[in-house]
Amino acid sequence: MAKTLLSSILLAALTLAAQAQDETTAPQVNDDLTVTFSLQVSGAAKVEVDGSWGKSKMTPEADSTVWTLTTEALTSDMHTYRFIVDGSYRTDPLNDRTVRDIDDTLSYFFIDGTPGSLLQEQDVEHGTVEQRWYPSSFRSDMEQRRLSVYLPPTYADSTDSLPVLYLLHGTGGDELAWLEMGRLACIMDNMLAEGQCQPMIVVMPNGQADQDAAPGCSPYRENTASHANVSSWLGRTEAAFANEVVAFIDSTYHTLPDKQHRAIAGLSMGGLHTIAISANNPDMFDYVGLFSPQTMNALTDKNIKAIQGVSNTVDGVLSKIPFVNTDNLREQFGQKTQHLSDIDVYKNLERKLIVQAVKEPKLYYIAIGKKDPLKRFVSKFTSKLDDCGATYQYQESEGGHSWNNWRNYLIDFLPQIFTSAE
Amino acid sequence: MAKTLLSSILLAALTLAAQAQDETTAPQVNDDLTVTFSLQVSGAAKVEVDGSWGKSKMTPEADSTVWTLTTEALTSDMHTYRFIVDGSYRTDPLNDRTVRDIDDTLSYFFIDGTPGSLLQEQDVEHGTVEQRWYPSSFRSDMEQRRLSVYLPPTYADSTDSLPVLYLLHGTGGDELAWLEMGRLACIMDNMLAEGQCQPMIVVMPNGQADQDAAPGCSPYRENTASHANVSSWLGRTEAAFANEVVAFIDSTYHTLPDKQHRAIAGLSMGGLHTIAISANNPDMFDYVGLFSPQTMNALTDKNIKAIQGVSNTVDGVLSKIPFVNTDNLREQFGQKTQHLSDIDVYKNLERKLIVQAVKEPKLYYIAIGKKDPLKRFVSKFTSKLDDCGATYQYQESEGGHSWNNWRNYLIDFLPQIFTSAE
Repeated sequence: MAKTLLSSILLAALTLAAQAQDETTAPQVNDDLTVTFSLQVSGAAKVEVDGSWGKSKMTPEADSTVWTLTTEALTSDMHTYRFIVDGSYRTDPLNDRTVRDIDDTLSYFFIDGTPGSLLQEQDVEHGTVEQRWYPSSFRSDMEQRRLSVYLPPTYADSTDSLPVLYLLHGTGGDELAWLEMGRLACIMDNMLAEGQCQPMIVVMPNGQADQDAAPGCSPYRENTASHANVSSWLGRTEAAFANEVVAFIDSTYHTLPDKQHRAIAGLSMGGLHTIAISANNPDMFDYVGLFSPQTMNALTDKNIKAIQGVSNTVDGVLSKIPFVNTDNLREQFGQKTQHLSDIDVYKNLERKLIVQAVKEPKLYYIAIGKKDPLKRFVSKFTSKLDDCGATYQYQESEGGHSWNNWRNYLIDFLPQIFTSAE
Repeated sequence: MAKTLLSSILLAALTLAAQAQDETTAPQVNDDLTVTFSLQVSGAAKVEVDGSWGKSKMTPEADSTVWTLTTEALTSDMHTYRFIVDGSYRTDPLNDRTVRDIDDTLSYFFIDGTPGSLLQEQDVEHGTVEQRWYPSSFRSDMEQRRLSVYLPPTYADSTDSLPVLYLLHGTGGDELAWLEMGRLACIMDNMLAEGQCQPMIVVMPNGQADQDAAPGCSPYRENTASHANVSSWLGRTEAAFANEVVAFIDSTYHTLPDKQHRAIAGLSMGGLHTIAISANNPDMFDYVGLFSPQTMNALTDKNIKAIQGVSNTVDGVLSKIPFVNTDNLREQFGQKTQHLSDIDVYKNLERKLIVQAVKEPKLYYIAIGKKDPLKRFVSKFTSKLDDCGATYQYQESEGGHSWNNWRNYLIDFLPQIFTSAE
């Protein structure tokens, strides 16, 4: 009988114990904020760490079964990484913390400080996170769409109504992106506990028109690839936003349903959506946040034509991307798509921005990294805003088009919203 | 300018498109229900697929950069798998669906039919899923614990009170296990849509005393390894369950707070917890489900002594487990732990089972796989129930200690609960 016990419960327990023992310490953040990685793998010729801070080769020990790397000192943050073993990506088997970034599963760890400590759960009151479905009508075969909601700790114990921040993801993201890569619940819990922002509801919808929910959570398996389709990005979710998302939230939660108690912000594609949604509904949002926004499409037909024109040079681009089914892409990008100015929410956008400016939102916030390839287009957009007589706050950070920046922009944005709300 | 566009937005779009194109078709479920896997990897000597249905070697194509495998016909189900490249596990880079199982990230796919179609979201009304925190007092340094809640589609639109199923995970699991590996929300949505079960709230707490929330969601980083610690499994969460979990749910949601509208079920360790919680609160649950339960510990001191006695043979066990820090394990398992009969909720358990039987719960359900190493202990437990004069329903399935079985047991259990509730 002892043998049977050993071979079932106890063996499982010992195995779990052995795994867990190592996992709590991987990777090792050293006192000098360098980080040490180690990977046990046999027969590999080349092993690398590909991290959010850069890529480096690991060094094999004498018998080449354990590879190690110690980085330079890293900044306080949430850092993601994978190993590359002879060209194949893999997560860290000694780290039980993994996170999905669009289609990739990444290992991650934190370095304490600012903002790293804000991104981890602390011993504070915690809000509630929900995934729920709301009725939608702009696709007849997709009558429900899923969104995520953060409710602050005080929400459950009070019937007081709260302001709402609508927080939008980027291309390829979904209703879980700000929770998973964005650490939204931790940021809110910690900033609320420290009195750094006002209690608010945060709503994170799925902004891809052809996708109702994140991969694995949708009835429409084929549509989990909708982020590949440009037509899924532009026009439809923005047009339906006020009547469907905002209306649903105001009818479902205890909200303060007026302009001074609504904010909207988004990253990359979600920044473009934020421009369009707020400009089309100038009486709806007093606080607007654009985090590394896609902007050029919103303002000039020239740029959307440039994208359409790419069909002529698509072979040149495709030659740089390995393992691509070029036939399908050529078909997709070769076809004539609509001009942005043919899409309702983007029609007369410049005039709408002027109207929005006249109605004086309390904050129009724009942040972009110095190395972001979108920076030059953001500059064009701020020039356009100047022409429109709009007032805005402009922040320029180090780095590029990355989650590190988007989390920091949110942390910068949150204390500035709902501050003058009574 | 075209170059900048290409190198940023468009290149990102094309890359996403290329990824997504492949991902929707990986793996390929063929018409005859065989499944074809393929993996692009260079320089590998041996590549395998390790699936929930078994492990098989893949075959290299002529140039050894693409490895493929076509399985036997698989049953309708959710199937999980990973590749093993020269001994290293990795998920499928062509499949965007991954799921966490304790410390492992697995790729997965479905085969339609029964139960496979019940495990996927269908075009039906969807319930809401919440993660929320509740006050707990049994650990002074962990005053909040997190649980998951499923609310049926009708919950939001009605003030009607609903019955509650408490659904418990196994050793190493947490408050997300039944949602992620267990597909709880899909199962509920689909069975409700087909009228196969009653509307109910499903509550999924974290049953490890030394862990307040799943990895990455807890302020207590060191405690994510708590599943390694036997003392985290037994006694404390069971003792606090009625006063903390049930009381919180009844005070937070529109519930029917009486015995005939409460059910409790659990898998493996959660089955043992279910035995203890229901026996210690014989007026609380009319429906009890044990899915591959750990049982022997609950009934005899002899078995817990056998575990304690293992310290004498621990070297023999450890020699079978690679990469183990044996010193720590020897210390942990070598130390004298409490006897189960010293733990309040397990004291006089046999007498409590007799009292529970006298109070005639409407359903006491037990299911176990024919190949489950726990089966012999479940047999002892049912004999003990016979001695106690208890009535129970006993189901024996194929297979062993696996999520495939636990999902099936739940699907078998759900239609039988709250059926006679008015």
